[in-house]
Amino acid sequence: MTTPQPSHKALVPFVSVDHMMKLVHHIGLEPMLRGIADYIEADFKRWPLFDKTPRVASHSDTGVIELMPTSDGDVYGFKYVNGHPSNTADGLQTVTAFGLLADVASGYPVLLSEMTLLTALRTAATSALVARVLAPKGSKVMAMIGNGTQSEFQTLGMKTIVGIEEVRLYDIDAAATAKCAANLAGQGLRVVSCTTAEEAIEGAQIITTCTADKQYATILTDNMVGAGVHINAIGGDCPGKTELAPAILHRSDIFVEYPEQTRIEGEIQQLPTDHSVTEFWEVLTGAAQGRTSQAQITLFDSVGFAIEDFSALRFVRDQIADTAFFHALDLLADPDDPRDLFGMLERATPA
Amino acid sequence: MTTPQPSHKALVPFVSVDHMMKLVHHIGLEPMLRGIADYIEADFKRWPLFDKTPRVASHSDTGVIELMPTSDGDVYGFKYVNGHPSNTADGLQTVTAFGLLADVASGYPVLLSEMTLLTALRTAATSALVARVLAPKGSKVMAMIGNGTQSEFQTLGMKTIVGIEEVRLYDIDAAATAKCAANLAGQGLRVVSCTTAEEAIEGAQIITTCTADKQYATILTDNMVGAGVHINAIGGDCPGKTELAPAILHRSDIFVEYPEQTRIEGEIQQLPTDHSVTEFWEVLTGAAQGRTSQAQITLFDSVGFAIEDFSALRFVRDQIADTAFFHALDLLADPDDPRDLFGMLERATPA
Repeated sequence: MTTPQPSHKALVPFVSVDHMMKLVHHIGLEPMLRGIADYIEADFKRWPLFDKTPRVASHSDTGVIELMPTSDGDVYGFKYVNGHPSNTADGLQTVTAFGLLADVASGYPVLLSEMTLLTALRTAATSALVARVLAPKGSKVMAMIGNGTQSEFQTLGMKTIVGIEEVRLYDIDAAATAKCAANLAGQGLRVVSCTTAEEAIEGAQIITTCTADKQYATILTDNMVGAGVHINAIGGDCPGKTELAPAILHRSDIFVEYPEQTRIEGEIQQLPTDHSVTEFWEVLTGAAQGRTSQAQITLFDSVGFAIEDFSALRFVRDQIADTAFFHALDLLADPDDPRDLFGMLERATPA
Repeated sequence: MTTPQPSHKALVPFVSVDHMMKLVHHIGLEPMLRGIADYIEADFKRWPLFDKTPRVASHSDTGVIELMPTSDGDVYGFKYVNGHPSNTADGLQTVTAFGLLADVASGYPVLLSEMTLLTALRTAATSALVARVLAPKGSKVMAMIGNGTQSEFQTLGMKTIVGIEEVRLYDIDAAATAKCAANLAGQGLRVVSCTTAEEAIEGAQIITTCTADKQYATILTDNMVGAGVHINAIGGDCPGKTELAPAILHRSDIFVEYPEQTRIEGEIQQLPTDHSVTEFWEVLTGAAQGRTSQAQITLFDSVGFAIEDFSALRFVRDQIADTAFFHALDLLADPDDPRDLFGMLERATPA
């Protein structure tokens, strides 16, 4: 073959699943959660600077495929992510994802990365960052309702960023709770497996709901939620999928990522479209108030937003420089003369 | 390392630039253009079945980055593509692209491919398919205005699918014309290099305009275009970027891909939003008329649409089975227990 070798401009650093797992172990899971949370906080504080749009969703009977783009003017990023609750029955992940960063000035991609793992990390980092700001001071106990893929990451995020000491697990599937409890053993937390949601919530200052199935639409009923808690609702994240009784929403001060998206996908799709909500980034900048009393119920109606993925990808990009945790992918055609794509192809003629 | 090997579900076939060049030489450029045109024609004939949306564009001072998704209900596809006219001055491509197909039922990606080359191929295949249907019968001469990256592909598409025998080249940069003429030598066409656009158009039944720079907004003036021609306008493809004088549009019957997108990006952004246009797919199905007289001016106001990329990716996917023109990319996390992503990560702990 006379194929010319691709130049460095044609090669995009690619972080595979294997690379990402090695990167997590290299950095350490808890330091990595803190690092990603720091990047998210930094990006949320410059929120108005970003190009923002609700994600572009393609819905089907079995799930949704979404593209989540954003840009800060210098760097562009997007994530591909699916959500298919019935996948687990076929031995597949409910959520898989990958993402990309590109240079806005040239449009050339500069990073391609797996994001199934990274999405779990950034979701946990976001939840913990928000809880650090909004949860009652001195929160030590979290109820974890839904013990699937996200649950261990959520729990360790709350441990390392908020300082919780006890997690109380509940899932309609006891096997999921057993899996989660086994994974969390030896991680420096008291782990209590519960057989009802009510039992899990006992004594918890933070209640995290993270269930995947559309059919269980009310994970928390009104009488289950007392005063002085922070609810971290991350499972309700598409049209028709919610986890909380509307009465809870009416008793809560509601914080969201990007209202235009949350009103379509979040818990607040159950409320009138003019119901007052606070954009969380404004609490970080001081433009809006967070928790104002210990008795208040704060609710983070989280659906996941493109800027969080952008922050996580930025973190990965900064960490992999000078490491072996990526390889160069021959993704972009790069002829010597940029107008001569045809000539490049012709010169690649097999001998 | 104790890292488990990824299962086949985690591995996505990836077609690199090198693979794509080898695939083109394996199939042959002209047969590949015909093959892609056949796939586009088949998909255009089932147009109503597709999820369609104008592309999601992120504009900056120097260019645009776009995501172009679509789905036929069974397969989902999207393309990432940039357009940066000033890139060539830095030795970079104006347009780079990559794309993906995924299984709608599970949301799992099934193909990742370079699309810088493939976009040039699908654009040429689309132009030629449309010209085969709309150009005057017996068209033998094409004027090629703009002799950049797309020009050789456009020309060979018109040769193999429409049957042109002569191409007349013009570019404001004589070096581009020389490059194009050299590349087209020996390809079975009479190649005539011209020093003005007027000279290039002499005797041409098909006029292709494909220029990249926003600053030359009128490539064709009204007096340059006679009766009985087909204009293939592919360069005007974003807001504020057009190539044709409005008077030409008023004398033409205009055919478009997807009006919702073309009215924003195409030549018809110069016209009132209710100006009558024909969707090309309807000509293929017989629902609308194409050319009705030899004297008519037909204009394909092409901006590129997601279904064309979808068709090209389908073609590639069908062609690479049982070949060496791809490799398996470790893009998706795939734990043995789909709810146990954390356990997979833990088991990857370095020894």
